[in-house]
Amino acid sequence: MDPDPVLEVSPGAAEVPLTVLKIRDEAAIEAADQFAVEEPLEIRLAGIAFTVTMRTPGDDEDLVAGLLYAEGIIREAESLDVIARYRGPEGGTDPGNVINVILKGDLRIARERLRRSLVATSACGVCGKVTIGAIRNACGPMRSDALVPAGLFHRLATSLAAAQATFQRTGGLHAAGLFDLDGRLLVLREDVGRHNAVDKVVGHMLRGRRVPLERHILMVSGRVSFEIMQKAWNARIPIVAAVSAPSSMAVQMALAAGITLVGFLRRGGFNVYAGAHRVATVVPEPA
Amino acid sequence: MDPDPVLEVSPGAAEVPLTVLKIRDEAAIEAADQFAVEEPLEIRLAGIAFTVTMRTPGDDEDLVAGLLYAEGIIREAESLDVIARYRGPEGGTDPGNVINVILKGDLRIARERLRRSLVATSACGVCGKVTIGAIRNACGPMRSDALVPAGLFHRLATSLAAAQATFQRTGGLHAAGLFDLDGRLLVLREDVGRHNAVDKVVGHMLRGRRVPLERHILMVSGRVSFEIMQKAWNARIPIVAAVSAPSSMAVQMALAAGITLVGFLRRGGFNVYAGAHRVATVVPEPA
Repeated sequence: MDPDPVLEVSPGAAEVPLTVLKIRDEAAIEAADQFAVEEPLEIRLAGIAFTVTMRTPGDDEDLVAGLLYAEGIIREAESLDVIARYRGPEGGTDPGNVINVILKGDLRIARERLRRSLVATSACGVCGKVTIGAIRNACGPMRSDALVPAGLFHRLATSLAAAQATFQRTGGLHAAGLFDLDGRLLVLREDVGRHNAVDKVVGHMLRGRRVPLERHILMVSGRVSFEIMQKAWNARIPIVAAVSAPSSMAVQMALAAGITLVGFLRRGGFNVYAGAHRVATVVPEPA
Repeated sequence: MDPDPVLEVSPGAAEVPLTVLKIRDEAAIEAADQFAVEEPLEIRLAGIAFTVTMRTPGDDEDLVAGLLYAEGIIREAESLDVIARYRGPEGGTDPGNVINVILKGDLRIARERLRRSLVATSACGVCGKVTIGAIRNACGPMRSDALVPAGLFHRLATSLAAAQATFQRTGGLHAAGLFDLDGRLLVLREDVGRHNAVDKVVGHMLRGRRVPLERHILMVSGRVSFEIMQKAWNARIPIVAAVSAPSSMAVQMALAAGITLVGFLRRGGFNVYAGAHRVATVVPEPA
């Protein structure tokens, strides 16, 4: 056995080439292939380790901003003083998988929010309803008057798929796209982790002073989980669309938040799981 | 807005019915649909909160055993003294989303392992190579002499798909199946989280005193991530197969561990990303 992995990944690369053995009818052929890169990213708050997340390199600063925002550690871009890559004590030799964040203002407030965000999940009698209740207290109901035609959702899906350049090559990345209510794609991010893709999108908008996102649609390439709905709720996104199915708790959250949740976007149509009042459909003429 | 989520989930149910609005050609029809259930599970060690994970209810004891094993908190089933559901101080009113674990022997050793497993990921200069190196030190190389015919992998895929009863209905669950080297399915688990499905499978085998799994094949329904390879390595599974593509770090780990990694299992064939010496192919006759 070779003691070292033979797959070398350049720092910051989102994909990497590798020779694989393709088996067709039990015969083997060597062929080149592309891989989505997955590397750990350590986030430090004022030099102290906060969390490590596996992510596809790229837009790391947006990822960190989006993650801190989703966790309630920051509530606005102004709270971020410095987001800087840390490359080790000598500088330059490390792969750059450490981001150090310095927050403005009283660090004790951020620490207290962090402590509460960790404690909230371990309340006695933990269940979906308790969790959703805690998030509702933090976020409040969605009051956006957004209304979009049903036909728009297929344009979003087509637009997201067309923009997913890396996905076409590696088949291993999740995508998240943010659209305006006219269906224009504002920002697209891809990552091995579906939550990271959403954090990168929201972090990008946060750093551009463009949150809350009350006139926007978030579209994701795969399933909708509880965490994605939580991130959407926190960023005040009124409409979430997905290529695949949501989980039961994603639907529960959409109902509790008043978020429009659309899924199972296929050639023939799609499903509305919650908030149908924001989807304008054609009423069939009586025969 | 209704202040309470209208989607009621029975305690312990893996799926739940709900009426959705199906949009076809911009017209809306109400229809019944099934959802994969996603609920938080809190794990306590001797009554003290250890972690909360989102999971599909079912086989929670296996999930907890598999997770503690994967995290290195326990190394054998004998370390588990009690795995018991906690239903609140009065008993019975809680939804049963808390599992309390009591370990045999010195709890300080478990605490120390837990502390080290958390500290290991925040080493200076964190990167894929450092992470893989730490796991290699813990697990060592794979020494299984397993050898399987290339034709077996399509049988595994067919068998996994046939056994995925819930997936067919909800479209929202990941599956993990453990096979013997003759391609017999030994255990299948489904979950909204792909890692949970693997933990449930390994936990089941651990509690049945059947680890290490040196003569077994793990097959997953989606992508192969770094964490799945880590769990396979820890359980000594020599062959991992997936319907979709692996990430670059999953390939790096397979190469470092000496695990055979097969992916992109489609009708026409599949790819071998690492450990091809365990896949017997037919050498074409020279023309």
